[in-house]
Amino acid sequence: MAKRSFPLSKVYSLLEPGPVVMVTTAAKERANIMTMSWHTMIDFEPPIVGCVISDRNYTFGVLKATKECVINIPTVELAEHAVGCGNTTGRKVDKFKTFHLTAVTASHVKAPLIKECYANLECRVIDTRMVAKYSLFILEVLKAWTDPSRKNPRTIHHLGKGVFMVAGERIKLPSTMK
Amino acid sequence: MAKRSFPLSKVYSLLEPGPVVMVTTAAKERANIMTMSWHTMIDFEPPIVGCVISDRNYTFGVLKATKECVINIPTVELAEHAVGCGNTTGRKVDKFKTFHLTAVTASHVKAPLIKECYANLECRVIDTRMVAKYSLFILEVLKAWTDPSRKNPRTIHHLGKGVFMVAGERIKLPSTMK
Repeated sequence: MAKRSFPLSKVYSLLEPGPVVMVTTAAKERANIMTMSWHTMIDFEPPIVGCVISDRNYTFGVLKATKECVINIPTVELAEHAVGCGNTTGRKVDKFKTFHLTAVTASHVKAPLIKECYANLECRVIDTRMVAKYSLFILEVLKAWTDPSRKNPRTIHHLGKGVFMVAGERIKLPSTMK
Repeated sequence: MAKRSFPLSKVYSLLEPGPVVMVTTAAKERANIMTMSWHTMIDFEPPIVGCVISDRNYTFGVLKATKECVINIPTVELAEHAVGCGNTTGRKVDKFKTFHLTAVTASHVKAPLIKECYANLECRVIDTRMVAKYSLFILEVLKAWTDPSRKNPRTIHHLGKGVFMVAGERIKLPSTMK
């Protein structure tokens, strides 16, 4: 894999802009993918992430049981794959096979990385107290990978009902913010 | 104000893409603004939002005490205002005055709307159990406003250290997702 280790201290810069992500899990021999947009950074380092996964999703039960997942960040080239994974269920479909995506072994968790995504965050569930009420899982990012050849990844951002905003131009303003 | 009431059932479409937002609060006679990127939708309707506000921010104490705020969504024309509000503290600065923003009375909360933002979400804090550990406030959106003349608002998305991605083109894919 052409990916390199990415510093945990910079993981916030990948998720803070709000991209659609593809969450992989593994139950026994079976890996699955779900598409998700409801996530937020919670802390910088170690990077803590909150994500909302409905109990109607197959991933909900697997994540609750295995406490491991990978957050994979696709770019616009994978928009159809992301929608496909969002419109099917892992109860019935092998999504890696159906959508021609490549599973790569992770270093810290059993869930696989999606090779075609430009960034991958290996995560462990560290708090499930908000799962019953809000379906909100608290994750710690254990290891991050990015493709260093992708300089301005054109992430996709869901506006609802299959409409996506594609990442546009970048601007830089003087700022003391992290 | 040229804004119209916006259906609560569609509020997710405003926050799901992950824009930078400006959170207003009011303590006694004093209104304040802070810039924030760490938020996620938690439920569709009523719209429930999670947001992370550090206890180092002036807004933290005010929000905890008053349990009310407005989430205002700026577009790229307000990028400098957003950065300015992010780099100053309400302990020392009257941000409405300093950054030439206009406070408009809200309908359900004491915190004001920022007139110049294209959308405004009046919110009440409904759960503070994750505040001590994660600085995570759970908000319910009580009332939403948008400017109907702004068809493709160019929201800004923070990539860290004053670099922002500006919302680019829109694409639509066949999808059964909400």
